[in-house]
Amino acid sequence: MKNTFGTSVGVTIYGESHGESIGVVIDGLAPGIPVDRDFINAQLTLRRPAGKISTARQEPDEYHIVSGVFEGRTTGTPICIMIPNTQTRSKDYSATRALARPGHADYTAFCKYHGFEDYRGGGHFSGRITAGLVAGGAIALTALANRGIHIGTHIARCGGICDRAFGDLEADIQKLSAMPFAVLDETASAAMHKRMEEIAAEGDSIGGLLETAVTGMPAGVGEPWFDTVEGILSHALFSIPAIKGVQFGDAFDLLDAKGSEYNDPFRITDGKIAPVTNHNGGINGGITNGAPITFRCAVKPTPSIYKEQDTVDFFKQEDAKLQIQGRHDPAIIHRARVVVDSVTALVLCDILAGRFGTDWICG
Amino acid sequence: MKNTFGTSVGVTIYGESHGESIGVVIDGLAPGIPVDRDFINAQLTLRRPAGKISTARQEPDEYHIVSGVFEGRTTGTPICIMIPNTQTRSKDYSATRALARPGHADYTAFCKYHGFEDYRGGGHFSGRITAGLVAGGAIALTALANRGIHIGTHIARCGGICDRAFGDLEADIQKLSAMPFAVLDETASAAMHKRMEEIAAEGDSIGGLLETAVTGMPAGVGEPWFDTVEGILSHALFSIPAIKGVQFGDAFDLLDAKGSEYNDPFRITDGKIAPVTNHNGGINGGITNGAPITFRCAVKPTPSIYKEQDTVDFFKQEDAKLQIQGRHDPAIIHRARVVVDSVTALVLCDILAGRFGTDWICG
Amino acid sequence: MKNTFGTSVGVTIYGESHGESIGVVIDGLAPGIPVDRDFINAQLTLRRPAGKISTARQEPDEYHIVSGVFEGRTTGTPICIMIPNTQTRSKDYSATRALARPGHADYTAFCKYHGFEDYRGGGHFSGRITAGLVAGGAIALTALANRGIHIGTHIARCGGICDRAFGDLEADIQKLSAMPFAVLDETASAAMHKRMEEIAAEGDSIGGLLETAVTGMPAGVGEPWFDTVEGILSHALFSIPAIKGVQFGDAFDLLDAKGSEYNDPFRITDGKIAPVTNHNGGINGGITNGAPITFRCAVKPTPSIYKEQDTVDFFKQEDAKLQIQGRHDPAIIHRARVVVDSVTALVLCDILAGRFGTDWICG
Amino acid sequence: MKNTFGTSVGVTIYGESHGESIGVVIDGLAPGIPVDRDFINAQLTLRRPAGKISTARQEPDEYHIVSGVFEGRTTGTPICIMIPNTQTRSKDYSATRALARPGHADYTAFCKYHGFEDYRGGGHFSGRITAGLVAGGAIALTALANRGIHIGTHIARCGGICDRAFGDLEADIQKLSAMPFAVLDETASAAMHKRMEEIAAEGDSIGGLLETAVTGMPAGVGEPWFDTVEGILSHALFSIPAIKGVQFGDAFDLLDAKGSEYNDPFRITDGKIAPVTNHNGGINGGITNGAPITFRCAVKPTPSIYKEQDTVDFFKQEDAKLQIQGRHDPAIIHRARVVVDSVTALVLCDILAGRFGTDWICG
Repeated sequence: MKNTFGTSVGVTIYGESHGESIGVVIDGLAPGIPVDRDFINAQLTLRRPAGKISTARQEPDEYHIVSGVFEGRTTGTPICIMIPNTQTRSKDYSATRALARPGHADYTAFCKYHGFEDYRGGGHFSGRITAGLVAGGAIALTALANRGIHIGTHIARCGGICDRAFGDLEADIQKLSAMPFAVLDETASAAMHKRMEEIAAEGDSIGGLLETAVTGMPAGVGEPWFDTVEGILSHALFSIPAIKGVQFGDAFDLLDAKGSEYNDPFRITDGKIAPVTNHNGGINGGITNGAPITFRCAVKPTPSIYKEQDTVDFFKQEDAKLQIQGRHDPAIIHRARVVVDSVTALVLCDILAGRFGTDWICG
Repeated sequence: MKNTFGTSVGVTIYGESHGESIGVVIDGLAPGIPVDRDFINAQLTLRRPAGKISTARQEPDEYHIVSGVFEGRTTGTPICIMIPNTQTRSKDYSATRALARPGHADYTAFCKYHGFEDYRGGGHFSGRITAGLVAGGAIALTALANRGIHIGTHIARCGGICDRAFGDLEADIQKLSAMPFAVLDETASAAMHKRMEEIAAEGDSIGGLLETAVTGMPAGVGEPWFDTVEGILSHALFSIPAIKGVQFGDAFDLLDAKGSEYNDPFRITDGKIAPVTNHNGGINGGITNGAPITFRCAVKPTPSIYKEQDTVDFFKQEDAKLQIQGRHDPAIIHRARVVVDSVTALVLCDILAGRFGTDWICG
Repeated sequence: MKNTFGTSVGVTIYGESHGESIGVVIDGLAPGIPVDRDFINAQLTLRRPAGKISTARQEPDEYHIVSGVFEGRTTGTPICIMIPNTQTRSKDYSATRALARPGHADYTAFCKYHGFEDYRGGGHFSGRITAGLVAGGAIALTALANRGIHIGTHIARCGGICDRAFGDLEADIQKLSAMPFAVLDETASAAMHKRMEEIAAEGDSIGGLLETAVTGMPAGVGEPWFDTVEGILSHALFSIPAIKGVQFGDAFDLLDAKGSEYNDPFRITDGKIAPVTNHNGGINGGITNGAPITFRCAVKPTPSIYKEQDTVDFFKQEDAKLQIQGRHDPAIIHRARVVVDSVTALVLCDILAGRFGTDWICG
Repeated sequence: MKNTFGTSVGVTIYGESHGESIGVVIDGLAPGIPVDRDFINAQLTLRRPAGKISTARQEPDEYHIVSGVFEGRTTGTPICIMIPNTQTRSKDYSATRALARPGHADYTAFCKYHGFEDYRGGGHFSGRITAGLVAGGAIALTALANRGIHIGTHIARCGGICDRAFGDLEADIQKLSAMPFAVLDETASAAMHKRMEEIAAEGDSIGGLLETAVTGMPAGVGEPWFDTVEGILSHALFSIPAIKGVQFGDAFDLLDAKGSEYNDPFRITDGKIAPVTNHNGGINGGITNGAPITFRCAVKPTPSIYKEQDTVDFFKQEDAKLQIQGRHDPAIIHRARVVVDSVTALVLCDILAGRFGTDWICG
């Protein structure tokens, strides 16, 4: 399939940047999960543009839960959440229609859809589509939290500035859940924000590194071949626009380590088997070992910049210059982190429902 | 599903390290692809242990094509390739049965299979299972080559030593196809090999970085949401034992870059639209742009080392010491590279058959 | 998955009888298919209740194409079609909430969803959900027609009255496409309609037999094992409420035939290989042989009747009597036939896209 | 996918009639299910040809459990069962290679595989492939029996002779499990057998009706849209060669019934909610209601007959006469019934594992 992922819990998205609405259908979540509309709103707010480091397009993100929720709880049937597009600007795209924005999907969409694609504002490739994932992911996050599973993501690095490492995971995840700008260290947070503003002022853009931790996952979940926890998570994460790399545990950061350094020895801690270190990110042989799942996503700089760029006109098949106009994000890493949490939550619900049955993730 | 991947071309694996045989079933490859038994043998040889930097277990890897090939060509029905296990050593595992080897799947397998798992030699988690993928991948590589698509992987880094970057891709891929030790630069090759021998002599192990390039992929292949080329490839790649990170293009290597540096401008080159640089690894918005697909995999050090390690006895639920005996690889990165090529070939056949129909990948 | 079918073309439905809206997401249809809003309306009209032999609930079925269509053609990205529910009656269901209507899904829904289901008007089990399939199916029917593939269904039997057999298939399918009551023989049509009115007047209900033919399917489509054309079609058809049996060709009608009678001999006809008879319904070994695909669906009587029935109260776990009130269909077979056409069209688009690539079904 | 079915429990088959071996890979069965080799043998014996009413090809069906079973129990990893082909006759097929046997898949295979198919003895389309399903199905039947779920199939009709209806289901299923010729009524059994011998003597063939019952299924299993129990079962059942129709409950047999006759009223029986009649075959709205699942399969006559038939030569594209030689079954219905039981068992394991988790079907 294409715009769907998941086996036991399926997630399907639809919509274009300038269409009537965007949305998501989530199928297979257990019946009885409480649906907290305030929490969904709070999550959507974390994704919304924020000041100078974001696009000027401000969508209210008023969502409709069209199906699958009854008397405040999930019914077990498909949940459709629809988010109308209201801030679309009518404008003439014809001048730049065929100028492939470098780093964007304009040219690849043309190759795939033969010119029938809705190209306005990135169409179906727009990051706006992720709003549906955030709304739906909020329900998944609630379901997981009710089973003691918590997810949090911070900006570990941006513009050469590094956040502090995760410490007390439960506390850090709790702290992040309420932070509009997900940087744990205050000094780093201020410096990063300032750097992003500078880049924005230059008409340029920036990416960075997101780090995610999941606590409370039971051991013994995942599959050895093909449906490894790493494989399923990365499959979904690479859909988030701008994510170009995913590593579990330390991977790229310990390329020169020896086995004696990388292996995580097991010990009995508080009467429970657990690895003492976590270079493997909580996963051995594709299966959870009970330690927190940790992973990092490399986020490339937003491709829309205000500097003139070389490109081609793919209708005329000739070289061209491009000067992007309109409203764009100089960085999306601070908005993407809640998308990472949401997608992770949906994927984990899928994995857990497959392992323990469709009723497991119940309220 | 679990031990299966693929939609249009499905790959299913089975077998345990010490069972009767291991194997693979590949379903959905076009009819008429020539099956070159010498090439399959050559590929299996690239995966086989080699001297001091590998395990002492030497399997002849005599394979049987049990079905799906008739008169030297694929029939279009499922291809089953069976590889008997012949070098299994009967020995008593009871002493170490419940001692979880750090970094290995012993403990997670126990959590998942409740003790019913075949634990001998890693059972179904053994890297030996990848022999089937290599045999089947050889047919996929032939099919792709017949359509002008070529795949090559080199060891970009190991033990702190770096290979030269890819240069003329077609020439480098050609060169790699015949190299038992896939390092392009001769000096680096010798240094890396020496470093691996030193680590082996220490009773320790090492990992590193694999870099892969795919040339000849048509533009317009892949999906925007969920079935991105990155997502599908990473899903499969994370099954290869020891791979813990996957990045496309430069990702983790350019975390601080600006958009003006990271974007790949398009130009008309030789009458064809192509990006001038390739920081995006040939993929925009999940879809190929006609440039080579490039990705790098972080390979963790082999978890089996000969040094004493802390661990637990998961039957007795108590702390223990572990001294691993037996035959083990101090490094698998030089053997894993052909597995990466094979898995990549199978995944691309799947993606291309889905895009252009089941007959497309024909001989 | 659950509320999704299809591999190359996926169809996902959502919604409840008394929710905000019902709808469908269709993903994988080729870009460039013309979307004819009048035809969609005409198809929805065929599904709508009609006079005394239908429910009194009349929905306008005003549909929104929310995504995936641009400038009158499909874009190749997911098509979401939303149909608001407007004629829901606010009423108190509490008296009959736990009285399982015999033949309905009330009790099985309770067993599955533990009481969290939206029970109003059948909730997600309502035949109303099929409106989305009809709207989406209309686009699929257009795509197929543009490739010379046509689908038609008539009521072959109802209340003991039989329609004439299919004759000139192309002409009959053409004729059916404009018939509100799909019976080819006029006398049979009148008699059947009269019988349905009588049954309605009794407060009872009736089912019958639908017969479908598909012309123009290319030979060589389908799979031998598991994804046979029969298997995929029946999988989807059994979702249509009240369909309890599916046969291809003559099956149940020729249970005592000999091979010499049942086999369809091949001959060259008009320079083309074709079977002379069609007892196999156009499919041999799961694969199309170029003859029309023919199948028949047994439709059980609508379970909602106005006669008092024995049942249980599943909250109280005790025997009870049930007297159904409200608006119900004494027959749905005349409305179901367009649903059969629609589902068949969507399934065939899926099969054909898988065989010939995603662009095949193009306008 | 093609030669695979199942979501939580996947079944993949491979092999050709005259290849080295045929087999099956079953993935996702719980760990710990006891594997009873005698029972597997007994089931394979039920499928084997028997005397004058079967083919003269007698395969010993010695099977190898190649993986997934350890110390007498399933491990939870893929179970590969391989059955060597030993009784293949080397002969020259060139004379009849391109003569499409009516009712067979020769011509459709040629359309699909373009002549690369292994045509010997029906190749991958051969009923011989079902031996793997029977061997694997035996493990699934054991797993289900351990949870109180039992499956039995009898020949309800053949050559105009009818067996008695199912009576005490548990007793009848028990009785059938040991019957080589699955007809419950002794007189009908003798008459049917005699009729089959007569047809065989004529050089003709016969089909008939199989009826299946499943007891012990929990209520609340299945999905409302697309993955109905009927849809999933029929999808798999239509793969069994010669099955051309599937009905649940009474469907085609009660086409003229009214709702008041067809509805199954619920009552409390022995303290449990259950329908009093079972016209719906144990399924309402796609979901089990706790009553036995009942279905009937229409089996067409075996297409291989010894009478001369009209056909075409698809290489020469011209009309031809065909006189089939070799070893063939004049009827397969008595052999197919154990295949129906096996496929049903595998499908139910898949559905149940999806509903209750992968460990549910445990020994």
